[in-house]
Amino acid sequence: MKRVVLILSGCGVYDGAEIHESVLTLLALDKAGADVTVAAPDINQFHVVNHQTGEVMQDESRNVLVESARIARGPVEKVADLQVGDFDAAVLPGGYGAAKNLSSFAVDGAGCSVEKSVADFLRKFHEAGRPIGFACISPAIAARIFGGEGVQLTVGNDEDTANALEASGAKHVNCPVEAFVIDEDLKIVSTPAYMLGPRISDVETGITRWINAVLDLAG
Amino acid sequence: MKRVVLILSGCGVYDGAEIHESVLTLLALDKAGADVTVAAPDINQFHVVNHQTGEVMQDESRNVLVESARIARGPVEKVADLQVGDFDAAVLPGGYGAAKNLSSFAVDGAGCSVEKSVADFLRKFHEAGRPIGFACISPAIAARIFGGEGVQLTVGNDEDTANALEASGAKHVNCPVEAFVIDEDLKIVSTPAYMLGPRISDVETGITRWINAVLDLAG
Repeated sequence: MKRVVLILSGCGVYDGAEIHESVLTLLALDKAGADVTVAAPDINQFHVVNHQTGEVMQDESRNVLVESARIARGPVEKVADLQVGDFDAAVLPGGYGAAKNLSSFAVDGAGCSVEKSVADFLRKFHEAGRPIGFACISPAIAARIFGGEGVQLTVGNDEDTANALEASGAKHVNCPVEAFVIDEDLKIVSTPAYMLGPRISDVETGITRWINAVLDLAG
Repeated sequence: MKRVVLILSGCGVYDGAEIHESVLTLLALDKAGADVTVAAPDINQFHVVNHQTGEVMQDESRNVLVESARIARGPVEKVADLQVGDFDAAVLPGGYGAAKNLSSFAVDGAGCSVEKSVADFLRKFHEAGRPIGFACISPAIAARIFGGEGVQLTVGNDEDTANALEASGAKHVNCPVEAFVIDEDLKIVSTPAYMLGPRISDVETGITRWINAVLDLAG
């Protein structure tokens, strides 16, 4: 049974982890017989967005760990407490949380910072030769961390976003929602998910193939 | 294309709509080619639960409509504004939101009240001969509204919950997670989902069959 850590960034597409992508990732992992641990950094969200109106809720703050637990249906691990040796693969869905909480890509673009516990874990995990999957906008994190190695990845076909990723040294490959891009050497797999969508059934197809590719790399 | 309204109760198993069930319902509806409208009542949640610790967050309040929009990835309709003639079927996933926000079942049991806009819509929808699906704990709402007609339904195999539903006049039928119970006469379909679980892949099987049965009843 392969041990997979799913790193979330909150709960909701505009300020946290994209909910559909997160659930479809859990579904694909369960169908593949993986043993799943859900984790998130113990930090406050960049902000809270009212998903009904699109407005920022100025007086509210929410914690990424606590909100991620909604998707997990209970307690999640702190990313800072994760041990590389405990997992065969790591996967990150998208949602603006990947670009606002796990990194500052939504604000800073190519020169963004990555949240320290997430950056530390992903670097060590990668150095240990273990595969990492990135979906939707989360490949922006991969570009920032692994761009120096020329990592090949996808965020679909949005030219501006692709250019920002390439500014970090990554090589962007256009990809449809039902497919994924694999960097066999670096063991990084990415899929566009809701960067393209728009149908949840197509996102499910892409996520399932993406997860299976990550698990294949886990050997 | 069948028009289906999905009625949510927030975003999170302990104080709102069960997220996995809601997403798997959207997935099954999309795969079946349905035209989906997401709706929720515009009311405050009964309370807010920290899903990491299980504790009630005493100083926080959240709105059911606003939180439901997280699952919908954008604005949802108010249940009070729904027109019966606009839909061929209605479905409700579970989560404590069904028993705390859409009704008071979690507090009051068999004698619970049902939120007015939800009760009014479901009554009219049923009188118009249209099918309604209830998953997980939401059949408690069906028992309260349609118990007088002796509606046949399931919440899995929990004896206490089943007894509470039967106290309203409903007939409870034990049912495994991968299956559903159908009341052909009243056009009410129910499935246990996370009342049993525990695996998301089994919940997906049950939810998919449940949705297809509801759509079949929509003719």
